[in-house]
Amino acid sequence: MEMTKIDLIDCHNRIKPFIHNTPVLTSSYINEITGADVYFKCENFQKMGAFKMRGAANAILRLSDEQKSNGVVTHSSGNHAQAISLAAKKIGIKAYIVMPSNAPEIKKEAVKGYGGELIECESNLEAREAAAKDVVHSKSATFIHPSNNLDVIIGQGTVTKELIEQYGSFDHILVPIGGGGLIAGSALAAKYFGKNCTVIGAEPFEVDDAYRSLKSGKIETNESANTIADGLKTQLGDKNFPIIRNEIKSIIRITEEEIIESMKIIWERLKVICEPSCSPPLAAVLKNKETFRNKKVGIIISGGNVDLNNLPF
Amino acid sequence: MEMTKIDLIDCHNRIKPFIHNTPVLTSSYINEITGADVYFKCENFQKMGAFKMRGAANAILRLSDEQKSNGVVTHSSGNHAQAISLAAKKIGIKAYIVMPSNAPEIKKEAVKGYGGELIECESNLEAREAAAKDVVHSKSATFIHPSNNLDVIIGQGTVTKELIEQYGSFDHILVPIGGGGLIAGSALAAKYFGKNCTVIGAEPFEVDDAYRSLKSGKIETNESANTIADGLKTQLGDKNFPIIRNEIKSIIRITEEEIIESMKIIWERLKVICEPSCSPPLAAVLKNKETFRNKKVGIIISGGNVDLNNLPF
Repeated sequence: MEMTKIDLIDCHNRIKPFIHNTPVLTSSYINEITGADVYFKCENFQKMGAFKMRGAANAILRLSDEQKSNGVVTHSSGNHAQAISLAAKKIGIKAYIVMPSNAPEIKKEAVKGYGGELIECESNLEAREAAAKDVVHSKSATFIHPSNNLDVIIGQGTVTKELIEQYGSFDHILVPIGGGGLIAGSALAAKYFGKNCTVIGAEPFEVDDAYRSLKSGKIETNESANTIADGLKTQLGDKNFPIIRNEIKSIIRITEEEIIESMKIIWERLKVICEPSCSPPLAAVLKNKETFRNKKVGIIISGGNVDLNNLPF
Repeated sequence: MEMTKIDLIDCHNRIKPFIHNTPVLTSSYINEITGADVYFKCENFQKMGAFKMRGAANAILRLSDEQKSNGVVTHSSGNHAQAISLAAKKIGIKAYIVMPSNAPEIKKEAVKGYGGELIECESNLEAREAAAKDVVHSKSATFIHPSNNLDVIIGQGTVTKELIEQYGSFDHILVPIGGGGLIAGSALAAKYFGKNCTVIGAEPFEVDDAYRSLKSGKIETNESANTIADGLKTQLGDKNFPIIRNEIKSIIRITEEEIIESMKIIWERLKVICEPSCSPPLAAVLKNKETFRNKKVGIIISGGNVDLNNLPF
């Protein structure tokens, strides 16, 4: 099922009472060092601190009353968990959250603070999926995947729709790739609301499954996940990959050093807290100056939930 | 000479081309833990990263053409130095900056980056004043004090004028006190543009000279300065103290632990980088909940120039 322009407009109207229209920041210094005209869409200022609130709110609002009465369940390494917890609380339904026991303490506390019921499991995809399935069976709860769900995907796409509404179209919008929900939604929003606006992915070398998937034409996995960008460890799915394969022409890979360096530039110069998972897009512009010189570039600062006791600098 | 409402309006119009109208952030979590309705005026997003740009721009713009041609000089532990450097560069004049040799490296680099000529000296007021006097004599440059200068004071007051224009009047506006420029200017702006709007100071116990000055009726000094809030170590002067004595009824003192704790709340919850010198106002609200309960409270986040390699958490 292809999501249409109308679907995106309806989705944005549906979730507006539950989200912030987040501000956009610029920096003369960053424009100087990149040679581009860069606009940062600050989803770190979104409710619960990340764009994930958009997709979570949309997916829950699309449920039937019966589904709502049984609650929702998800597994997530962090922000999607907080988003489902907060969106469920605001909509007045129950949320069960499966999270690896080694997830950052700040993210576990936030889920509980937002009223989600935390179910801890081992830190691998199989354990997370099994624990979530248990809740689906025992509670008749609806499973909401963090990225491979069309309602989540168009929810995330409203970030890019909103950015284009705020500042007009862009030559390029750069988006980090983890599970693929944000980039798939952004690609649709750029197609429907932009003018020759190209969405480009940015991904750590250490978890370059999306880069390899785009090359091979099928969903690839990561054998290891040694990246500081913990939000980007997840892989693409059968709902978002077809959109990514059709709409995304380029994914730029980023080293761990480049992630930390560009994160530090964002903290020092934009004066905002962003997660390591947000900084690959700026790193991509910095390492490809010729491509982006004199271009109008949008960058999505995807989230700001950082454990301050565990910083890379 | 009493600064009037017209002086403040003229000042704001004069400096508008050189400053940002900075955004205001709120946090449901902070409202919940304080019981107040708190608005953070984010001068960390100001040009060069602090409110000091306002006073510096105003003081330089008020010079005669002859004064401008000889340049300006100041001594500062940091942000005022950057502000004078950047404002001078934008206005097209020369700036000489006297700075203690042990000032944070990030602040020295920023001054040079903005085109200021750095003159290092020992880390005490006498050495700084002597070095600045040398430049006044040898270059005929005009000395611009960081806080004890009426043009600087009303420049800083435009923060509070702007906040009231953005969100209407407040019950209380809380301001950190260092040299007294920001709070004196804020007091005038609250008097001229607010409605029963009380400006309250917040100051580290370790450098509580303003608190003691308000009690004794004369300018007191600090014997030591063991605070992490390095922007608040300076003392009041004969230009701003009369305003502070007339307009400010209350200064709340803050421990070093409270400074760090409230700084962490701002970073974690507002997702913005602020200096330790910004956090006494939030700490003051947190430790006096009865006073501020259900009140509309403005807090000025005065700056965001932090050395990320030297954080207290």
